[in-house]
Amino acid sequence: MDLAVPAPLAIAPDLAALARDLFETLRAADHDGVGITRETYAAGETRAMRRIEAIAREAGLACAWDAAANLRVTLEGTDPALPAAACGSHLDSVPQGGNFDGAAGVIAGLIALLHAARGPRPARSLHLFVLRGEESAWYGRPYLGSSALFGQFDPAWLDLPNLHDPSLTLGAAMRREGADVDAVAARRVLCDPATLSHFVELHIEQAPVLVARRVPVGLVSGIRGNQRHPNGRAVGEAAHSGAVPRWLRRDAVLGAADFAMRLDASWRTLLERGEDLVMTFGIFTTDPREHAMTRVPGDLRFTLEWRSESEATLDAFGALAQAEAEEIARERGVRIALGPGVRTPPAAMDKRLLAHARAICTAAGLSHEVLASGAGHDAAIFSNVGVPTAMVFVRNEHGSHNPREAMEFDDFLHGAALLREVLLTGADALR
Amino acid sequence: MDLAVPAPLAIAPDLAALARDLFETLRAADHDGVGITRETYAAGETRAMRRIEAIAREAGLACAWDAAANLRVTLEGTDPALPAAACGSHLDSVPQGGNFDGAAGVIAGLIALLHAARGPRPARSLHLFVLRGEESAWYGRPYLGSSALFGQFDPAWLDLPNLHDPSLTLGAAMRREGADVDAVAARRVLCDPATLSHFVELHIEQAPVLVARRVPVGLVSGIRGNQRHPNGRAVGEAAHSGAVPRWLRRDAVLGAADFAMRLDASWRTLLERGEDLVMTFGIFTTDPREHAMTRVPGDLRFTLEWRSESEATLDAFGALAQAEAEEIARERGVRIALGPGVRTPPAAMDKRLLAHARAICTAAGLSHEVLASGAGHDAAIFSNVGVPTAMVFVRNEHGSHNPREAMEFDDFLHGAALLREVLLTGADALR
Repeated sequence: MDLAVPAPLAIAPDLAALARDLFETLRAADHDGVGITRETYAAGETRAMRRIEAIAREAGLACAWDAAANLRVTLEGTDPALPAAACGSHLDSVPQGGNFDGAAGVIAGLIALLHAARGPRPARSLHLFVLRGEESAWYGRPYLGSSALFGQFDPAWLDLPNLHDPSLTLGAAMRREGADVDAVAARRVLCDPATLSHFVELHIEQAPVLVARRVPVGLVSGIRGNQRHPNGRAVGEAAHSGAVPRWLRRDAVLGAADFAMRLDASWRTLLERGEDLVMTFGIFTTDPREHAMTRVPGDLRFTLEWRSESEATLDAFGALAQAEAEEIARERGVRIALGPGVRTPPAAMDKRLLAHARAICTAAGLSHEVLASGAGHDAAIFSNVGVPTAMVFVRNEHGSHNPREAMEFDDFLHGAALLREVLLTGADALR
Repeated sequence: MDLAVPAPLAIAPDLAALARDLFETLRAADHDGVGITRETYAAGETRAMRRIEAIAREAGLACAWDAAANLRVTLEGTDPALPAAACGSHLDSVPQGGNFDGAAGVIAGLIALLHAARGPRPARSLHLFVLRGEESAWYGRPYLGSSALFGQFDPAWLDLPNLHDPSLTLGAAMRREGADVDAVAARRVLCDPATLSHFVELHIEQAPVLVARRVPVGLVSGIRGNQRHPNGRAVGEAAHSGAVPRWLRRDAVLGAADFAMRLDASWRTLLERGEDLVMTFGIFTTDPREHAMTRVPGDLRFTLEWRSESEATLDAFGALAQAEAEEIARERGVRIALGPGVRTPPAAMDKRLLAHARAICTAAGLSHEVLASGAGHDAAIFSNVGVPTAMVFVRNEHGSHNPREAMEFDDFLHGAALLREVLLTGADALR
């Protein structure tokens, strides 16, 4: 059972109605027959951003478009010299995606600023960043707008072809939607991190943890980094399935299965010790050119990925995998080779902001869960340039990137109120 | 080190030379540029059989072709009413196979009869069966000639297309090589099992056990039956690889790996208890249409085959697999389904003949090993119609059905001498 939430975390009825209308308007505008499609640096994304701009301007908020064609909505504070409190998210979607991945964070930020605009003017300014191109589904790279914000846009990305229309490059699409591509390519810093006190992003959860725990909101402890090995192999020796006895076999399937079970056991142990970790063998397959029911398999190909909030855990699990591979070579005569790996470092969420957010929830009687984010977010870019960052997750039934995304509107309102409080009061927790 | 073998197991130098020449002649006649190809019920097989016939006739042995176009070479005994002692094997090969699979058993049988023809005439007749179509590589069915011998040829097989030339049916090929197809299809019994005292077949080993044990010959304890499940599946639920924690996963790869490891552990335990068993997951693959590095796999397809000399062990292992599958469903939420299974029953070798063959080896100081045959042989057909049967394996380095079959000629001579002794004296062991 969710607890009733007292007034400090309530949303004014007209702002709630505005949010509900905005979700409906966006859905109606961008439904493609199956799901929601708002392409990175394309007309639908721009149109959605202009809707946010129009509402903000009507309420007297300042709006500015930067060189990357990101939109920044601002409620100016009484002391503009103070670092501004910021929130934000993105409006693009994957093809045939859902209506909430990205948009929920933008709409929550908008009603936070509209709420604040009704009270006494705050000392520090409040920003809502409506960021471009968070989804990698269109050009193979995520976080395009937030990277550009901090001068971290790699000019080579301009030549990336659109994965669904290879005649279009990212650079041409950006130019078309009004970006100053030369400034972006020159890595001009569009927002100095020192001008921000903190950043907070609301996002739907992309896993069913909050659903399983029956709590409406999550507080993110960190964004997992990952280590990926796309070309793992188990190499034994093919043999006659009927004639060769166990002691003479070097069975690649049994070697790889042993490896998977050993890593699974280590995973369980690390979780029991309180480490953050997930591990996935996504592809796991004998060689289709030569496998057969009556042949002891000599070769198996696999991918292995593990993720953690902690760089140390990423390293430790890699060392462990190596040790297990050597054991299996000794015991089964099957060589397990992970092949080259690619590392994406974790992004830390600010511990003081997290504690502050927990205190807000506790005071308000809002049940919540602290959990890691397994997927990446624009918030990671803010964190990695040194802006103290927090994330609020909202319960969501069927994962993201699909038309079945299912966020209850009441859960959204809890999350949006929490985002607002962390935005308005988070800087106090950082002193 | 092999032990020196005393005179009783020696082969006369001229018969050894004949055997060596025959292997060379067959190799020269049927080398296809890569390996040896002698197609089932085709010109090369018939030509090779006629070479055996010619040598036999020249030595005064009787030759007869039966309705299935099998060749029977006979040294008539002084008491033709006694059941005859028989040996034999086949001369067809897989495409691009080796020179010894089948031919070694025929040549060993031939020199056994030539040896016997030089001494005082034995009381019981001796037969060498040169059997047609043992390899399933041509029409998808093995043991064609030996099945026909005992009236067990399924008339439906006549319509089987040649796998390498679908315009040719088995029936047409048989007719072309001189078979009386109507008699075969009518299941006429071409050889009454009651007219045979026993049957013994020499064959190269198809696994490297004798190589690993450093012994030249093996005595077969039984021909393994098998249980095959070509359509096994592990079904869990696909999920985001970064976001979904361990306790909410239903990972098909981990479920299937767990299953494989549990069966591997049970296999080891059964071997330690002295049971005969091999087990193979030949195909083991996530679904290529949907697997990806960053997706928890929801589906894995596998084949599972296990073989044993013992029908009880085949049953017990199946029950065990079922129990483990249920455990995994409970513990991991992954459903393991073996799907429909096909059973081929084991063929027992005669224990008295086996003991007799061991006694011959021991008396002669010939080091040997008792082992199961993992592959099927014509001998299984003889055993299953009630003829007491034995098999002699000869050490062979690289498995069979490939051009690298590597049988040392000295090992062949040891095996051929052992075959001869079991042929000549085996009936005494059965009294």
